[in-house]
Amino acid sequence: MTEANPILAQMVRGNWVENRYRGAFAVVDADGKVIFSAGDIARPIFPRSAVKSMQALAMVTAGSIDRFALSDEDLALACASHRGEDVHVEGVVHFLEELGLSKDDLECGAHAPGDPEARKGLRLRHEAPSALHNNCSGKHSGMLSVALAMGAPTRGYIDRDHPVQVRVRSAIEAVIGEPLTEGRCGTDGCSIPTWAAPLEAYARGFARMATGKGLSPDLAAGAQRIFDAATRHPHLVAGKDQLDTVVMEAFGGRVMQKGGAEGVQCGAIRDKGWGYAIKCDDGNMDASRAMVAALLLAIADPDAAQAEVLHRFRAHPVLNVRGLHVGVIEALEGVWG
Amino acid sequence: MTEANPILAQMVRGNWVENRYRGAFAVVDADGKVIFSAGDIARPIFPRSAVKSMQALAMVTAGSIDRFALSDEDLALACASHRGEDVHVEGVVHFLEELGLSKDDLECGAHAPGDPEARKGLRLRHEAPSALHNNCSGKHSGMLSVALAMGAPTRGYIDRDHPVQVRVRSAIEAVIGEPLTEGRCGTDGCSIPTWAAPLEAYARGFARMATGKGLSPDLAAGAQRIFDAATRHPHLVAGKDQLDTVVMEAFGGRVMQKGGAEGVQCGAIRDKGWGYAIKCDDGNMDASRAMVAALLLAIADPDAAQAEVLHRFRAHPVLNVRGLHVGVIEALEGVWG
Repeated sequence: MTEANPILAQMVRGNWVENRYRGAFAVVDADGKVIFSAGDIARPIFPRSAVKSMQALAMVTAGSIDRFALSDEDLALACASHRGEDVHVEGVVHFLEELGLSKDDLECGAHAPGDPEARKGLRLRHEAPSALHNNCSGKHSGMLSVALAMGAPTRGYIDRDHPVQVRVRSAIEAVIGEPLTEGRCGTDGCSIPTWAAPLEAYARGFARMATGKGLSPDLAAGAQRIFDAATRHPHLVAGKDQLDTVVMEAFGGRVMQKGGAEGVQCGAIRDKGWGYAIKCDDGNMDASRAMVAALLLAIADPDAAQAEVLHRFRAHPVLNVRGLHVGVIEALEGVWG
Repeated sequence: MTEANPILAQMVRGNWVENRYRGAFAVVDADGKVIFSAGDIARPIFPRSAVKSMQALAMVTAGSIDRFALSDEDLALACASHRGEDVHVEGVVHFLEELGLSKDDLECGAHAPGDPEARKGLRLRHEAPSALHNNCSGKHSGMLSVALAMGAPTRGYIDRDHPVQVRVRSAIEAVIGEPLTEGRCGTDGCSIPTWAAPLEAYARGFARMATGKGLSPDLAAGAQRIFDAATRHPHLVAGKDQLDTVVMEAFGGRVMQKGGAEGVQCGAIRDKGWGYAIKCDDGNMDASRAMVAALLLAIADPDAAQAEVLHRFRAHPVLNVRGLHVGVIEALEGVWG
């Protein structure tokens, strides 16, 4: 048995530790040099939605951004795990209209919006959630644009061997510098493939996207365009009070940050040329948010306002049924940089 | 740093392990002899709702069961983390009526019922959930009966130094044979105190309740009465399709089983005289259910029908937004007995 990853976060209830969250993280430059790390960073992990900005590079290689004159807002939505607020749903409707498509072309499935106000709005209007409310609907719109730009059928664009997913896979491989294999593949929440690769490779991919180093000129330029779009429109990437949004707002373009399901956090500190990737071993999202906040506090040279935002996520209050503050999920100190 | 607890369960997505769940478990007899175990069983854990049957012993020591002629159904509800189905809500209303009280005396707070049908029913009737729907409302009714039997004020019965909670604490201490201390105390989801004590002590407590060994005659008889009530009315203890209910139904009185928040599972194999306790380090409930199913498969001598029920929980399918089967949360093999 390999050595256990270290404890990176914990839940404290009252005055006693209730839960422990182990994990690994890597901060890597574009040459693959590990700047900071803990745990097994060679272990392949599923990056899930944390790499939507990498998946969006298929829009660059297929030429759909130019073909449809896609806006920064469209690109931000393509990178998003949005909360289904009106601004997100309207943005995706517009994105699909630009493609001459509609929500009926989305194959992500429907789920209730993450945003409580949006859920309430649907309830009051007696409307069921549609695929537009799926947090991945922007990414799927981007993938539909890839199908159109390639002259491939839009139907079935989520399938592993459809030209769209083949192109998405190639784009990720080009960025992380590692092959993605059928031997380490699963189906994501929104039904597209997700590929496990070493944690440090995903971190390196973000460093390459941030710097352009090791990428072809078109991928380098595309990566800058995508990071610029996401960091200029952070509200579109997640939503109200969400870590990805709030952190990118605070850092004003210096930090690209994106979470993924089951405890993944990835991003880049662009001015340092560093990429990072975190995986909480057990998939706990609150713990992973505490972890990435602690990491950015330690290594991203936050100013006072940025630090205040990060501290809010580094220690997440646990409330009980009556709203009493009964504990905290918090990153451990002293392991981050 | 102490050695990490072993991996007891995992989530597999596609053909690759996505998450790993560590934990500890102890199977102990009434003398405290450890029959099977893994991980750090001396580490104090918060048992949360897994010890409602121990908390219910305060009803024995205060005399409220006799005083109010409480039924087996009342006692099963006192042990329950129920799903807010009509049968649970009506049962708690009746319990409170027997005490001359109403839902306004409950201090557990309101939350939406766990059962989807019950939630839908409330929505259709435009009703807000009340404290009756709180999964702990039966336990709180039991605690109110303790207050009345003691001649103590009912108001504030959730507070740590109220005579009710002092009595609950004493009952648990008597059963587990360990002091509960202010230095390891937190507030539970329903606002009563929860006390951390060694995992093996909670397992031993269940063995003592199952056998009566080490208990005063009144506690021994009360424990039998409580276990009989819960195992005769397993639907009241949890609800439709819930592990606690389905397992107790399958084992017909041989097994007392109860889950608690943040990955705790406790119970007793009554005919063997063994108690058990499991804590998933990171608090994942699905993983803890897989763990207890694997444990009972290994040590409870299940017949074919019981084994079928346990296998269903030992490996829990992971579905994505479109309902596709994309993975499984499963207990590891070979670590349980």
